[in-house]
Amino acid sequence: MLRDDCIFCRIAAGEIPSETVYEDEYFKAILDLAPAAKGHTLILPKAHYQDVTELEEPHASRVLPLAAKIGQAMKKGLGCDGFNLLQNNGEAAGQTVFHFHMHVIPRVADETEALLVWEPGSASKEEMAETGSRIREGFAE
Amino acid sequence: MLRDDCIFCRIAAGEIPSETVYEDEYFKAILDLAPAAKGHTLILPKAHYQDVTELEEPHASRVLPLAAKIGQAMKKGLGCDGFNLLQNNGEAAGQTVFHFHMHVIPRVADETEALLVWEPGSASKEEMAETGSRIREGFAE
Repeated sequence: MLRDDCIFCRIAAGEIPSETVYEDEYFKAILDLAPAAKGHTLILPKAHYQDVTELEEPHASRVLPLAAKIGQAMKKGLGCDGFNLLQNNGEAAGQTVFHFHMHVIPRVADETEALLVWEPGSASKEEMAETGSRIREGFAE
Repeated sequence: MLRDDCIFCRIAAGEIPSETVYEDEYFKAILDLAPAAKGHTLILPKAHYQDVTELEEPHASRVLPLAAKIGQAMKKGLGCDGFNLLQNNGEAAGQTVFHFHMHVIPRVADETEALLVWEPGSASKEEMAETGSRIREGFAE
């Protein structure tokens, strides 16, 4: 299940040290070494999945409840006002380690305004209908 | 379960029209009206939860598997190379509608580079240990 050549597998297995904020039989949650904000945490499953599309049980159903738990602990322990969950799939999406991980990023009001924002775009009703139709077709086998 | 004064409850219930890319008994997934990228989709539970910390079954375990399914459909239907999952909790985290929602944002290589990136920070070993300890304490009841 774990791979010797995967740094997150090795961290999850405890072969490489990390600042661990939470651990159970399925996951290890560690502090990111290049945090976007103080307390930035990564949830790592203790099994190798490249990204969310590979994720299976027993992990798939448990990531979000765990992220909620960690976010609550951050609010209580760090006194942050909110948090973002971010999970990148594919190099084009900014994924740099190809072992599924979810970012839990604490946010303090007025401190990290520029983080995770984008210029809102727009689309006409016709463009929306066409895009929607293409995604719906993508569900077909 | 649904609230009259919540726009996402009303969209989930079909009272307000939307470009729906996926629907089942638990969720409606719609195109965002101000997309960060073409095909930007929001997953809305058909029940009112303010944010991920309120999320319960039958929804909590099903969001991530559904997000994976939608991301795959985007890759197939839109031909994108990857996708981000983003979920904001609290005004400080950029949440603007207080009904839990997860963003699924298609990404095309070299097209949306500036999206969802941050200046990587740094923290000393001592700072990491102190931050980790505060989050771990946050788990205590």
